[in-house]
Amino acid sequence: MKKALAFDIGGTKIYSAIIDETGNIISEIEKFSTPKTLEGIKELLKNEIAKHENAIDIVAIATAGAIDNDNKKVLGSTGNLVEGYYTIDFQSLSTKRVFLENDANSAAWAEYKIGASQNTSVSVMLTLGTGVGGGIIINNKLLKGKSGAAGEMHFKIRNDRHRKCTCGSWDCFEAYASGTALKWDAEEMLNNPNVTTYDVIEGVNCNDPEMISVFNRWQDDLTTGIIGLANIFDPDCIVLSGSMAQFVDTKKVEEIVNQEIVTTPTSIRLGTAGNYSGIIGVALLAIERGL
Amino acid sequence: MKKALAFDIGGTKIYSAIIDETGNIISEIEKFSTPKTLEGIKELLKNEIAKHENAIDIVAIATAGAIDNDNKKVLGSTGNLVEGYYTIDFQSLSTKRVFLENDANSAAWAEYKIGASQNTSVSVMLTLGTGVGGGIIINNKLLKGKSGAAGEMHFKIRNDRHRKCTCGSWDCFEAYASGTALKWDAEEMLNNPNVTTYDVIEGVNCNDPEMISVFNRWQDDLTTGIIGLANIFDPDCIVLSGSMAQFVDTKKVEEIVNQEIVTTPTSIRLGTAGNYSGIIGVALLAIERGL
Repeated sequence: MKKALAFDIGGTKIYSAIIDETGNIISEIEKFSTPKTLEGIKELLKNEIAKHENAIDIVAIATAGAIDNDNKKVLGSTGNLVEGYYTIDFQSLSTKRVFLENDANSAAWAEYKIGASQNTSVSVMLTLGTGVGGGIIINNKLLKGKSGAAGEMHFKIRNDRHRKCTCGSWDCFEAYASGTALKWDAEEMLNNPNVTTYDVIEGVNCNDPEMISVFNRWQDDLTTGIIGLANIFDPDCIVLSGSMAQFVDTKKVEEIVNQEIVTTPTSIRLGTAGNYSGIIGVALLAIERGL
Repeated sequence: MKKALAFDIGGTKIYSAIIDETGNIISEIEKFSTPKTLEGIKELLKNEIAKHENAIDIVAIATAGAIDNDNKKVLGSTGNLVEGYYTIDFQSLSTKRVFLENDANSAAWAEYKIGASQNTSVSVMLTLGTGVGGGIIINNKLLKGKSGAAGEMHFKIRNDRHRKCTCGSWDCFEAYASGTALKWDAEEMLNNPNVTTYDVIEGVNCNDPEMISVFNRWQDDLTTGIIGLANIFDPDCIVLSGSMAQFVDTKKVEEIVNQEIVTTPTSIRLGTAGNYSGIIGVALLAIERGL
């Protein structure tokens, strides 16, 4: 049975585990705070890889940022990771092949292989967290685009320069469908700069009508974006994962989406590959495509 | 050399010609008004096919409407074609294989094989005409989706229910980037219900500042949609074809798009496969994939 040492490198945390070719996590899951320096990140990876290198076939790294089509390099800037992160020569950290993929693409692959989008020909996965990530799988392949950066959920859903997006542009889907966006919706609607995403979720749980209308606005914007994606990709399903997904009324969203689209009905589903879908997905992808 | 008898069936006109496997049109191009009855359309096709059947290898039909993944059936409703159009059993009209594809997908394939997107791995083509059609090619394959209807350019670019789209929903890209949309922009901005798309184009040619600002609004909305598509697909190029494409300042659009996207720079190009890209594309596709 083939095995990968997998990492999921995010802005605040790094997860790592050994995963076999069926997607089983066969070691303890290790968690680290993401070092604040380039050298720190390299040192951490190098040490972890050295510990396990003899027991594995490949190193698999899910990471923030776009990954090139050879799965070797981080392309350009990567949000909240340390400056120059993309200059790291990941292959130099191991004698085994080091295989990289974007974290959202990795999570999408996990859903496709062991989760909510198994046995589909076309699926779109959205990770609704601090930001919004996207992973699109078409006929057993991740949509990577010419350079590897495809699946960026930066399409505009309004035209009045209402909200600046983290990408520097205005009114992207990400700026309305992320967890951060829910806080912004609440700030705007309640005229309260201190309200948090958590306050809204708590309010909804307590049937607070104000918080319910804030949440509904957020869910309506999410639905708007999903309608567009469904018309563009005609997917078997759209999988929602990430910390915000659990709060979405997928039945209701699916009903509205299927009323609005011109393509045949699609299915809106919660991800089932779990919190470690990033490391599982990149491990499965590395074993299948990288060896 | 393989040959296809190709048709392009639209709401008002039907074109037909014999096309060889290199994309050359090797007969007269015949033009017909689209019959207003189901029987009329069937009769016309049957007669044309009977005339040429012995000289060709396959019948290739580009048509309005989504086409199933076996390239045999029109799926559901098809805009301005006669009611029940989708019930036509096209294969029954010939003893040779009858191969169908959506008209925008066919035009995209022509651009890919003999036109502006040759030798690309990912391309998006937009036909800007009465409506907006889309055809997306990824690694030598048309993006068809689960049922065949992918590439529909119905994603919302504003959220204030400003303009009803032909699809029944609100504020789709199509409702802002089509030729009809330019007329609507002019109606709104000039407060004149009688102004036409042609008036705007004429005005721009005569340096009329009012008409220039109408046109710029239309081009800005086109650009907004292209930014989203570029971030989603990370394409080598976006090809603009259809009657409105010639008026677009592709240099300017490309400049703005490349400033705004988070993916690597893309190229915005006019289609070069010509007015008959529909029949050429469907013929090439039918010969390559249908025989």
